[in-house]
Amino acid sequence: MRKVTVYDTTLRDGAQAEELNLTSEDKVRIAHRLDDLGIHYIEAGWPGSNPTDKKFFEIVKGDTFENAKLTAFGSTHLAKKTPEQDPNLAALLAADTPVITIFGKTWDLHATTALGVPLERNLELIANSVGYLKERVDEVIFDAEHFFDGYKNNPAYALEALKAAQDAGASRLVLCDTNGGSLTTEISEAVRAVFDELPDAAIGIHAHNDSELAVANSLEAIRLGASQVQGTVNGYGERCGNANLCSVIPNLELKMGIETIGRENLKRLMITSHFVSETANLRPFMRQPFVGASAFAHKGGVHVSAILKDARTYEHIPPETVGNEQRVLLSDQAGKSNILFKARELGYELDKQDATVDRLLKELKLKESMGYEYSVADASFELILQQALGKPLDYFHFRNFFVVDAKREEDAEPFTEATVIVDVKGQVEHTAATGMGPVNALDRALRKGLERFYPGLSEIRLLDFKVRVLSGAVRDTGGTASFVRVLVETGDKHERWTTMGVSHNIIEASWQAVVDAINYKLFRDDQRRKG
Amino acid sequence: MRKVTVYDTTLRDGAQAEELNLTSEDKVRIAHRLDDLGIHYIEAGWPGSNPTDKKFFEIVKGDTFENAKLTAFGSTHLAKKTPEQDPNLAALLAADTPVITIFGKTWDLHATTALGVPLERNLELIANSVGYLKERVDEVIFDAEHFFDGYKNNPAYALEALKAAQDAGASRLVLCDTNGGSLTTEISEAVRAVFDELPDAAIGIHAHNDSELAVANSLEAIRLGASQVQGTVNGYGERCGNANLCSVIPNLELKMGIETIGRENLKRLMITSHFVSETANLRPFMRQPFVGASAFAHKGGVHVSAILKDARTYEHIPPETVGNEQRVLLSDQAGKSNILFKARELGYELDKQDATVDRLLKELKLKESMGYEYSVADASFELILQQALGKPLDYFHFRNFFVVDAKREEDAEPFTEATVIVDVKGQVEHTAATGMGPVNALDRALRKGLERFYPGLSEIRLLDFKVRVLSGAVRDTGGTASFVRVLVETGDKHERWTTMGVSHNIIEASWQAVVDAINYKLFRDDQRRKG
Repeated sequence: MRKVTVYDTTLRDGAQAEELNLTSEDKVRIAHRLDDLGIHYIEAGWPGSNPTDKKFFEIVKGDTFENAKLTAFGSTHLAKKTPEQDPNLAALLAADTPVITIFGKTWDLHATTALGVPLERNLELIANSVGYLKERVDEVIFDAEHFFDGYKNNPAYALEALKAAQDAGASRLVLCDTNGGSLTTEISEAVRAVFDELPDAAIGIHAHNDSELAVANSLEAIRLGASQVQGTVNGYGERCGNANLCSVIPNLELKMGIETIGRENLKRLMITSHFVSETANLRPFMRQPFVGASAFAHKGGVHVSAILKDARTYEHIPPETVGNEQRVLLSDQAGKSNILFKARELGYELDKQDATVDRLLKELKLKESMGYEYSVADASFELILQQALGKPLDYFHFRNFFVVDAKREEDAEPFTEATVIVDVKGQVEHTAATGMGPVNALDRALRKGLERFYPGLSEIRLLDFKVRVLSGAVRDTGGTASFVRVLVETGDKHERWTTMGVSHNIIEASWQAVVDAINYKLFRDDQRRKG
Repeated sequence: MRKVTVYDTTLRDGAQAEELNLTSEDKVRIAHRLDDLGIHYIEAGWPGSNPTDKKFFEIVKGDTFENAKLTAFGSTHLAKKTPEQDPNLAALLAADTPVITIFGKTWDLHATTALGVPLERNLELIANSVGYLKERVDEVIFDAEHFFDGYKNNPAYALEALKAAQDAGASRLVLCDTNGGSLTTEISEAVRAVFDELPDAAIGIHAHNDSELAVANSLEAIRLGASQVQGTVNGYGERCGNANLCSVIPNLELKMGIETIGRENLKRLMITSHFVSETANLRPFMRQPFVGASAFAHKGGVHVSAILKDARTYEHIPPETVGNEQRVLLSDQAGKSNILFKARELGYELDKQDATVDRLLKELKLKESMGYEYSVADASFELILQQALGKPLDYFHFRNFFVVDAKREEDAEPFTEATVIVDVKGQVEHTAATGMGPVNALDRALRKGLERFYPGLSEIRLLDFKVRVLSGAVRDTGGTASFVRVLVETGDKHERWTTMGVSHNIIEASWQAVVDAINYKLFRDDQRRKG
């Protein structure tokens, strides 16, 4: 079986993404997860360019990695210095990794314009830098920056630059589509030319996603003989990101019959993807291939009935192979089998003949005709399920709320105050709170009344809040009196959950969603206590 | 120059995305924007499957489309019925579009397992359905569902199914990678086989993104001779989505030298992408190729200094070609030319050197840093433009508002009352109104105070109302206290317009948007009076 090594640059090129901000400690945690996943190389930073990366290499010194070799990344030496004098090369050696990766210019435009040196001198920078490092470290990888643009513009020079690195002792030549602008056909042509010219070279591919072709381009280079692929978890990276390893790896393993991290490790793909996005405090991309929450989610009734007969009808791979799972979404087309399936996912075994299922179906149909949308609000669905099973939640009872918003000056925000009366465990709690808007004030007043009884509530945080005017309603009533649906996403240290409210009144709809969110938290805490 | 037609299915296949929920009215608005973009076909819905789509076709009847043909989508007729009896085919014809697209099974597994009919009968369903429709409508497009999986499993049968559709009069055969599992090499092989077998057929490609190859697979099919590409704006769609037209189109136009919507329309690509995501109330994907906010954003110092010398060094295309712009992060280089571009769209010719433009830029920068997003709120932008031009609106002045929401019973909606004080033409108006929620009550009280002076206000209706928690803000403040942006769409007998408000307080944000909506109406009525 053919093997390809996986070289992850989430911590270096990935960290260049506009939305990504990782501390040195975040990077250490991610590095160990990547090692667990079976990644072969982890490019962990550019020690010469920033203190976060420099600190990373200090912290990580002495850590054990089972599968991965750490590599430090940097550029060829400055044109005005010798390798011995160059601070960047010194920082690379100081990182004390078994592998060093340096990038050099292979596009003539870049040598002359960006670097401002004659073409000959650029070749010397490459050769000198690789040679100098090769004497001091086990393995030197050469990243041929802008190789494909260079090849298009001046093929002879681009190949010459590769040869300079190879002759100086580079263990591997990595062809970079730095600007991400190459078509797959252009990748093919250039990779073929490289193998013609340097038949014995160990080649790698490093693609960017600016044309939404990074995965395809990586697979194409590998198909033609490249034996290393560089990329990042979730495709994070500068501008549009790098080749997404969460797609490259399963395509190679499951479809092209090429071994990378192995089938057993592949099952950790989804959890690793989520770990990285959570560590970066970024919301996961639902539609992400292979590992996204929607990747194996089925909405339409036709699809659902087909996958129940044979999952292959609408799933290109078994979701478990990458640690993902099949999901059936509830929507207004949902039938009984969708509900049973969904209940089973949540750990409830219901019988199709059971009166509970009929009751539940009736309740859901009614709610959905009012505009509730359970396909996106799992937590509210589970609360309804509890109720249908005859186990309604009983943490507190509503009595009264009162909210005031008053605005007296054009440029000032309104003053907002809420009072709430609830019964909790036999006591009447009457609380008041101000807030940034009525929902916030109500939420704060309600929690004030409950936290004394349920201290766990202090852990929860609102993560997202969405309001929609509902279809049809606008037409019927017109004006600002339309039906609205509020979706609230809440989280604690264990999980995230979505709840929902629907009403003509946005305050009422928000209130329902907030009450559900709190009930769900209390319910789950109970479950965890009971094991 | 070779031409390829673009077939957009955002409103049908895109709407199958887990996170997408579009009303019929949203769909109408999006359809017109797609028409403005120069899209050739708009697959607008499946009238036989849900009431939203049925209603869409009723509303849109009589609307004019400059570039696009609307198409209705549905399946071949039921095995137990004749075409004449089939409710699905009847619904397709009732939609009254110039083009009908039907999908049929071309994967033997699907015919026998999902449909449960013999292979021969499935071919009859295809032929009968296409033939029946072809007699009743100008153009019938046949979507060969699961063609590539079918070809892999039973090439002869898959090709036979295509032939059945062609012989029955289908104008075009669209090869679908329904499960999105095909590698680009598999696409090549199957497309070549189709052209060998049916050399004269007009072929289309419909790819899904489950392997992150939808764009590459679409380009490959076109390279080999397909003359139509199907996809969605932003790649929305079931599971991992469809081929992303926002990437397919510029790749074809700018890199493969194939004409689609034309270079001039291409400049509207980014704004159309944003319009669709905002209408769907979804946050745009920053790293999206070509049209994402990060697509031409430069973070690293090396990159920034190089692009200042020559933008080609780190940009694969000039961002303006797709309506995007270069951004240098941290250096705060906003787009003066974008403002000029936008103002020109609204009929204002501004000079780049004009102090107005500087003032406007400053104002917009400030507002945008707070979360205002003028790309979707044209009316609010025009009001700011008026102000910057030294012509602020002066229809009324705010003094005071006061809103109360009180809820006393669990299952009742809250009681809501608002009072408003405004100065209008030298008089102080103090009014009160109840409402279905605080925004409705405020809106009604405000209009009560103004309608006596401006009777035209009685014509306006709120058409849509959207609330978003702003990215980043959640992280900083947590809880229900996050920054929210409210978008309000209003209409009268002449036009529709969108206004916006941003605040920590949803009441305040809504109030801003409502005030802008009323001011815009009064401003436009003045303009119309003056001719």
